[in-house]
Amino acid sequence: MSGAILTARADIRVRFSEVDMMGVVWHGHYVRYFEDGREAFAKKYDFNYLDAMNEGLSTPVVKMDLSYKKPLRYNEPAYIETIFKDSEAAKIQYEYRIYRQDTDELLTTGNTMQVFLDRRGELILSSPQSFMEWKRKWGVID
Amino acid sequence: MSGAILTARADIRVRFSEVDMMGVVWHGHYVRYFEDGREAFAKKYDFNYLDAMNEGLSTPVVKMDLSYKKPLRYNEPAYIETIFKDSEAAKIQYEYRIYRQDTDELLTTGNTMQVFLDRRGELILSSPQSFMEWKRKWGVID
Amino acid sequence: MSGAILTARADIRVRFSEVDMMGVVWHGHYVRYFEDGREAFAKKYDFNYLDAMNEGLSTPVVKMDLSYKKPLRYNEPAYIETIFKDSEAAKIQYEYRIYRQDTDELLTTGNTMQVFLDRRGELILSSPQSFMEWKRKWGVID
Amino acid sequence: MSGAILTARADIRVRFSEVDMMGVVWHGHYVRYFEDGREAFAKKYDFNYLDAMNEGLSTPVVKMDLSYKKPLRYNEPAYIETIFKDSEAAKIQYEYRIYRQDTDELLTTGNTMQVFLDRRGELILSSPQSFMEWKRKWGVID
Repeated sequence: MSGAILTARADIRVRFSEVDMMGVVWHGHYVRYFEDGREAFAKKYDFNYLDAMNEGLSTPVVKMDLSYKKPLRYNEPAYIETIFKDSEAAKIQYEYRIYRQDTDELLTTGNTMQVFLDRRGELILSSPQSFMEWKRKWGVID
Repeated sequence: MSGAILTARADIRVRFSEVDMMGVVWHGHYVRYFEDGREAFAKKYDFNYLDAMNEGLSTPVVKMDLSYKKPLRYNEPAYIETIFKDSEAAKIQYEYRIYRQDTDELLTTGNTMQVFLDRRGELILSSPQSFMEWKRKWGVID
Repeated sequence: MSGAILTARADIRVRFSEVDMMGVVWHGHYVRYFEDGREAFAKKYDFNYLDAMNEGLSTPVVKMDLSYKKPLRYNEPAYIETIFKDSEAAKIQYEYRIYRQDTDELLTTGNTMQVFLDRRGELILSSPQSFMEWKRKWGVID
Repeated sequence: MSGAILTARADIRVRFSEVDMMGVVWHGHYVRYFEDGREAFAKKYDFNYLDAMNEGLSTPVVKMDLSYKKPLRYNEPAYIETIFKDSEAAKIQYEYRIYRQDTDELLTTGNTMQVFLDRRGELILSSPQSFMEWKRKWGVID
């Protein structure tokens, strides 16, 4: 088995503090929604960032984009779909899709890219062994 | 005069709360740095969002991207250069460049795109008169 | 029936972005945990802030305190217990207690006080009718 | 010389993202304003948290309170006065006062208390030597 598409869902409800003067979620808060998506993904697929840290690796987000089509308002329920995008490079890439809960209407999309850094902050060019094993375990690669 | 390039500079110093477990600025905080850049730009060029709101318009950020090359650490001084990117469309677009203060080393780049919405949240397709006048006043267009 | 004690529970898991250089949750993020507690309470007891807004009222938090005894670390599961503190004054008061999930160890406590403001931002000195009815419905007062 | 009162001032301007649906600064953002006050104080009085970290100490905020009297709105200029409150205990305590810039009207007050923890996270009961020296240097104690 290979080529498995891994996705996770995280439910949210818009907090009062996330809404701006215009009554809609301020764009910066989507970054946290993406984080909620990533954390839900990590929990579902046993992808533990602390393991990487224990190996002396850090995995900072170095690229991010978001594009929003429809607004979210205070108290509205939504969900974040987080999709793992495989790459041969030593990168962790996710796509995010935020949907309104009642209607499954697509509201916002985005992407993040994380790299692996070693203890001295130097970029690691080939995927760590533990990451490759994780991908194999879940059928992303052979 | 037309084609003027408008830029503004905002100085920052990394706060303790902006730094993650790895000792570097968490990517989500760059969204606030971009906002600081935008606010400095608005002040310098008398670009008042409250005027738009008073006209019943809102100007949400609908697209954003960021790409970072080098990290920032706690207490490090940096500055954000915000560059207005003119467009014939009814859009407000900025490019951001974050530099280390001592060395002028480029650390992070990004872009945002804002649109104009009317009172009912409908997209406005041609630039509001006040925005065109502002562009003329500062030599962005004839 | 009167004197009912209303409480709600919200489960959280510490996000990467909430942890500081020392590996523990930065104190400012507890303000959001309290908000999560308040939103869970509102949902459980049908206490809708939007209703107040529709009546032209706002209910800002004007006092807050927090005191923490034990730290929370990245990825640790915790829960927030939110307790409604009744008062004869026109105030909405909650106490918060944050516990570690596995051990029920008490980690952090806090309080918030909200007041009612009218459309002009003036303080309302006696509790709005809808708030009194809500208290009666849930047995807080006779 | 002893008993010197140390204060620092930090100027801010309310950002769009800090304002809620009601058009006033959300209470949680005052925690960041207090941090801005603390960072301005540290810079003015050469009080470097990184030194403490290098000695293996952390100084988490373990108590905080805030009380607000008057709101701040988008784009309004304000300043934070941060006052060092000396104590014989091994604690770093500040009082904060936020004023409107034009009128010097007092808007919000608050306090934070930090303790010293050692490398294992244990509370340090007597003030570190470097903290005592800092207090002497600035005339807080003899």
